[in-house]
Amino acid sequence: MLQLDFHPSGRHFLSIPGPSPVPDRILRAVSYPTIDHRGPEFGALGRKVLAGIQQIFKTEHPVIIYPASGTGAWEAALSNTMSPGDTVLMFETGHFSTLWKKMAESLGLKPEFLGLPGVEGWRRGVQADMIEARLRADTGHVIKAVCVVHNETSTGVTSNIAAVRRAIDAAGHPALLLVDTISGLASADYRHDEWGVDVTVSGSQKGLMLPPGISFNALSPKAIEASRSAKLPRSFWGWTEIIEMNKTGYWPYTPNTNLLYGLSEALDMLFEEGLDNVFARHRRLAEACRRAVRAWGLEIQCADAAVYSPVLTGVMMPDGIDADAVRKTIYERFNMSLGAGLGKLKGRMFRIGHLGDCNDLTLMGTLAGCEMGLKLAGVPVAASGVTAAMDYLASHTVPVPVKAAA
Amino acid sequence: MLQLDFHPSGRHFLSIPGPSPVPDRILRAVSYPTIDHRGPEFGALGRKVLAGIQQIFKTEHPVIIYPASGTGAWEAALSNTMSPGDTVLMFETGHFSTLWKKMAESLGLKPEFLGLPGVEGWRRGVQADMIEARLRADTGHVIKAVCVVHNETSTGVTSNIAAVRRAIDAAGHPALLLVDTISGLASADYRHDEWGVDVTVSGSQKGLMLPPGISFNALSPKAIEASRSAKLPRSFWGWTEIIEMNKTGYWPYTPNTNLLYGLSEALDMLFEEGLDNVFARHRRLAEACRRAVRAWGLEIQCADAAVYSPVLTGVMMPDGIDADAVRKTIYERFNMSLGAGLGKLKGRMFRIGHLGDCNDLTLMGTLAGCEMGLKLAGVPVAASGVTAAMDYLASHTVPVPVKAAA
Amino acid sequence: MLQLDFHPSGRHFLSIPGPSPVPDRILRAVSYPTIDHRGPEFGALGRKVLAGIQQIFKTEHPVIIYPASGTGAWEAALSNTMSPGDTVLMFETGHFSTLWKKMAESLGLKPEFLGLPGVEGWRRGVQADMIEARLRADTGHVIKAVCVVHNETSTGVTSNIAAVRRAIDAAGHPALLLVDTISGLASADYRHDEWGVDVTVSGSQKGLMLPPGISFNALSPKAIEASRSAKLPRSFWGWTEIIEMNKTGYWPYTPNTNLLYGLSEALDMLFEEGLDNVFARHRRLAEACRRAVRAWGLEIQCADAAVYSPVLTGVMMPDGIDADAVRKTIYERFNMSLGAGLGKLKGRMFRIGHLGDCNDLTLMGTLAGCEMGLKLAGVPVAASGVTAAMDYLASHTVPVPVKAAA
Amino acid sequence: MLQLDFHPSGRHFLSIPGPSPVPDRILRAVSYPTIDHRGPEFGALGRKVLAGIQQIFKTEHPVIIYPASGTGAWEAALSNTMSPGDTVLMFETGHFSTLWKKMAESLGLKPEFLGLPGVEGWRRGVQADMIEARLRADTGHVIKAVCVVHNETSTGVTSNIAAVRRAIDAAGHPALLLVDTISGLASADYRHDEWGVDVTVSGSQKGLMLPPGISFNALSPKAIEASRSAKLPRSFWGWTEIIEMNKTGYWPYTPNTNLLYGLSEALDMLFEEGLDNVFARHRRLAEACRRAVRAWGLEIQCADAAVYSPVLTGVMMPDGIDADAVRKTIYERFNMSLGAGLGKLKGRMFRIGHLGDCNDLTLMGTLAGCEMGLKLAGVPVAASGVTAAMDYLASHTVPVPVKAAA
Repeated sequence: MLQLDFHPSGRHFLSIPGPSPVPDRILRAVSYPTIDHRGPEFGALGRKVLAGIQQIFKTEHPVIIYPASGTGAWEAALSNTMSPGDTVLMFETGHFSTLWKKMAESLGLKPEFLGLPGVEGWRRGVQADMIEARLRADTGHVIKAVCVVHNETSTGVTSNIAAVRRAIDAAGHPALLLVDTISGLASADYRHDEWGVDVTVSGSQKGLMLPPGISFNALSPKAIEASRSAKLPRSFWGWTEIIEMNKTGYWPYTPNTNLLYGLSEALDMLFEEGLDNVFARHRRLAEACRRAVRAWGLEIQCADAAVYSPVLTGVMMPDGIDADAVRKTIYERFNMSLGAGLGKLKGRMFRIGHLGDCNDLTLMGTLAGCEMGLKLAGVPVAASGVTAAMDYLASHTVPVPVKAAA
Repeated sequence: MLQLDFHPSGRHFLSIPGPSPVPDRILRAVSYPTIDHRGPEFGALGRKVLAGIQQIFKTEHPVIIYPASGTGAWEAALSNTMSPGDTVLMFETGHFSTLWKKMAESLGLKPEFLGLPGVEGWRRGVQADMIEARLRADTGHVIKAVCVVHNETSTGVTSNIAAVRRAIDAAGHPALLLVDTISGLASADYRHDEWGVDVTVSGSQKGLMLPPGISFNALSPKAIEASRSAKLPRSFWGWTEIIEMNKTGYWPYTPNTNLLYGLSEALDMLFEEGLDNVFARHRRLAEACRRAVRAWGLEIQCADAAVYSPVLTGVMMPDGIDADAVRKTIYERFNMSLGAGLGKLKGRMFRIGHLGDCNDLTLMGTLAGCEMGLKLAGVPVAASGVTAAMDYLASHTVPVPVKAAA
Repeated sequence: MLQLDFHPSGRHFLSIPGPSPVPDRILRAVSYPTIDHRGPEFGALGRKVLAGIQQIFKTEHPVIIYPASGTGAWEAALSNTMSPGDTVLMFETGHFSTLWKKMAESLGLKPEFLGLPGVEGWRRGVQADMIEARLRADTGHVIKAVCVVHNETSTGVTSNIAAVRRAIDAAGHPALLLVDTISGLASADYRHDEWGVDVTVSGSQKGLMLPPGISFNALSPKAIEASRSAKLPRSFWGWTEIIEMNKTGYWPYTPNTNLLYGLSEALDMLFEEGLDNVFARHRRLAEACRRAVRAWGLEIQCADAAVYSPVLTGVMMPDGIDADAVRKTIYERFNMSLGAGLGKLKGRMFRIGHLGDCNDLTLMGTLAGCEMGLKLAGVPVAASGVTAAMDYLASHTVPVPVKAAA
Repeated sequence: MLQLDFHPSGRHFLSIPGPSPVPDRILRAVSYPTIDHRGPEFGALGRKVLAGIQQIFKTEHPVIIYPASGTGAWEAALSNTMSPGDTVLMFETGHFSTLWKKMAESLGLKPEFLGLPGVEGWRRGVQADMIEARLRADTGHVIKAVCVVHNETSTGVTSNIAAVRRAIDAAGHPALLLVDTISGLASADYRHDEWGVDVTVSGSQKGLMLPPGISFNALSPKAIEASRSAKLPRSFWGWTEIIEMNKTGYWPYTPNTNLLYGLSEALDMLFEEGLDNVFARHRRLAEACRRAVRAWGLEIQCADAAVYSPVLTGVMMPDGIDADAVRKTIYERFNMSLGAGLGKLKGRMFRIGHLGDCNDLTLMGTLAGCEMGLKLAGVPVAASGVTAAMDYLASHTVPVPVKAAA
């Protein structure tokens, strides 16, 4: 077998914004024996995970689980609702919104890409007022969908989806609202039904703490209705047959059985902790991380405190510092992986993930690795970020007390 | 956690023709910690599995590994090579060839469905002469691809792909040859390059002994060339970017890391045993199974001995017997899953899988469960199939001797 | 890593009378992260397994769990209750009773070894009348303990412990009753309190379905009282401190944490099935096995039907056949391990285990391997034992119906 | 199943001086299917681990592997070499040396307990000159063995064993040298042969990174010779039969198969890293830890820099602080386990483990948890120990560079 850690000893710190560290409990679940996907045990599993995942999306409508990674669920959202040549209004929040736009083009759609100018545009969230203005101008209703990214993994900005909904409503526009929360789900609060989202796209390898390999489309009745007349060719991604067979807990084709075991376990873990506690924990760790960045005297990529991501923090490097060289030093010397700057930000920042199965001391190890690595890489550091983070964590109570011994 | 075996004790016999029983060794590999899909360890993993999977397909050309289950790889084969409205010649060998045809229609292609008439058509393999005749008649080269299933999982028939290649060549027709060997790969010999296949589609959960969740397209240079002008919209399935990034062992989007761990382990296991030994083992177990069926006095679904599948055996029920009731009895009483009759054969047969990590005694347990279940279900049984199978196995030497103790 | 199966493919059939095949569910439990054996989580684990194991022994008195394999628990039973030079009355039922006697000698005790003469003595159980007679003769109460083996793993004989108790009582003798049910516990009914046993010795790797490594002493108040004055030196095995610390769920020294995880899971599994169902399942499989042996025309080692073991069946070879050569053929050709003849029976018999996580089809695979191996090894076989076993299993209902799909 | 982490999320920091965190790689090995301990695969495993463990002890003589936890191996060392009433000279280095002495008494030996007076005696290592003086005085050679603890887990002191050997030799005394390095082996350099140790006792759950459950006696020819005449009763612990059967890779009774799988994997890991690199890593992490303690203004339990333990660091609390209350706060608030003060030090110190599969960032998380916990518990902290540790780690190169990507 390949040796999958090139370091001589100790646990690797996987501090990228996903795939997040998979808890042992889930890895064990993923290793259950594969069963007959047409048998009664599978049906019980299917019914459980389909019911549970609705609670995560906060929806009463169908959630499709694809045996495919997240990029596939992006495609599914578009191909089930759009027809060739349709115009979609997308908002540039960062690298992943750009990739989704590129996909729309590949599929024969006409994306219009709104956004604030330059790199600064990647430091703020979706601007709902710009969307509203554009939709008001679209009196002929050429725009068929508004596509936005909830948690932009490339920047650490979590946009206000409810505001986008209000913008669409204010414009009185019939466009569908398609939202990518691949990296936000189960880390940041998300409300598919309440926010009036038509298709929410998500994946397994972030807040759900699973390996990559399954992905989701949460639907609205309006989206299902749209799929009846949408003309983009589709088969694997088609909702209709899946929704029908999901009623009894099965899928029309072979599902990703072992990741569904993992999903079942992840749901148990999230509900045991309580979703609100999960969200509070993420917010607390994110704040500690930002205090460290500020203490170092470095800039946080997200420039608007209202939309700080609870999932990850982008750390900008001073001019003249290659962020990827810093990351390489940290990887080699401290056995830790950090996220790279992507697209327009390549080499200019690194990203710290603090999502999923994260806790105080894991974050402290991560921040210590950053602080030591910054110094070794010659980045001027104003003060100890580690100390700042400890000050915050020690003075802010944990959201959930330890269980009493049984 | 859900209880995933409804029986009180002992190991479930998963005797369906896939997903096949996943060896413990692979389940453990699947449970390795998920790593950074952009880090150096992942690159080493990627390069290993990409090189290894070429040996399994017997090709020197690129093999795409999708983080999606097998049905997706069907779609990928079509969407990368075809344009809307293209005619494809497909051959009806059973339920899965029918589903692939249905998919082609969903994607906006025009499938022509050749085949022998009626249920009898599902008892024989691809008729290469019918394909040749049809292609000769297509003087305008309207047909863009010939699509056939190598191992038809719904019937237990393994068609002669080399013969199909010869038929296309004899007709002097430029159509691409697309082959589904989802359930044949790594159980039955398969030669992508030698047989001149343009796209071979396969999956993980059969001869590769993995859980479902990754799938494959093996390509020819001609297929890659065709993809440059093919007009079906595609993004997730697109070959070009994947081929480019695979050169260094990475993927353009998040791969299914944990199943790639499993693939790495499966490749080690297959190469340790030796592919020729793997194929010989499957042929031997399949013959033992057929001897059991004949001893019972039941008919084997495959009516042409030249194309018996080494992967599974379809067992036809006498008139008046509901095969699904027999399967239910066997499931409940003997903790074993068998494959159902599909499509035209629903209720008329069951399918015994003898693929992947199978050996003599596992097969004997399986056949004993069938024999006891047949009797309990009131199916007249002429003689002991178990005895017939033992006679064959004990008198035919195993292909590989046990290792000497180190 | 060492390759731990020298066969090229498929699951090994571990059909020895222990270690029995460990269910995946328990192997996963055994792989939980090791925790602080002085922390609150460990206390909860300790309290659970200590309470559960009492139900398995059917006792309300303390059960000691040693972080040591079964042979150690033999020593513990003696060293906690005896003083140097004490006489113990032991009964020769087979190889393991002989080893226990040898241990008593090593520890400086004076074992008296009762038994029926010759090899025939190994085909019957403990003769309670012989014990009674000997105790009646011991008017000076020189004998301090009666030591018997409940399920003799070397022969497949399960002795009547209640009868031994009655014999001691009838003789009005104060000797302690020490019983080894290492291979019987959780497969054959066992009643520590009801049968008036003073120390019951058991281990993990048989009916409890665990790997070897932990073992047990179930105690009576009389045994605890005896330990206060017993003079054999002891420290690791000493009951007193363990009983004291067990009250809160801890141990005086480092326990075998990971096997206790396994024990917790095994208890869950046994209680889910129900102990009476577990015992009925073992009796049913044992009867099917014996029918196979009889059909082959071979002799069952146990010559008294009243004491047939539900755990294993000893199969005697005809004169001139080397049982170990038969076992070697079966191991090499059919990837199955059988138990060897031990001590006086070396080379004259082999032993089939049908204990722990066994079910119908696993047994059928085992019997098929035996039948094919016997033929290959040149042992004359009268008729198909496999057929005889199938006839029995198919006509005798399973004790527990399959669960309804949830 | 019991929930084995009472905290809502994230990985528990197991920062006690053993059991140390078991690497996933070893936990997976421990979950391999249990095999026949009399079969050829087991023999290959046995031969591998027996050869490998000799390299760890740096001996060419037999090493006994017991299927029992470390306390058992203490007993084995005494019971194989001593006779009832023998005098043994033991040195009080802390709690574990005291327990070993207590065991010697329980076994009927007469321990003489040398040591420096009071609690101060627990802050320094074995005083070889005191041993030499005592042995010189023992002109009648009443003392049969000198028993010392190499790495005293209760204090964080690693004594100089070579000096003890020299002391015995200087005195010209024939006593055996028995050494406990349960918590030192594979973390601190240890040389059984070179240092002339007669019996070395060790366990699995420390530097070997295994769960508890197996333990060791490394022997010298002189110890084996002594065992021939030693009169303490023994059976389970007896060396003779084990040495004989180990020659072919087997054991006289059932070994702890699954922990031997783990041992095989642990040996692979240690040899891959290189023992000298392993030791250097431990020394480096220990130094970083001590710098943190000093920065906090707290006292290190070990008062002699020459014998600082590379395995753990004892941290003394100021007067009036209950160390166990600090530990409880840290456990509850930061999901971390620390070692308690034991015996004379109960409530006066806590112990930080930095052994086994430890690395820089794990240690940093641990130290951050301590620093925050100290503040929360009201312990005055002079300066940031975390910062001091980072300064040291970042300025001292790692002993082994990261592997180049394959």
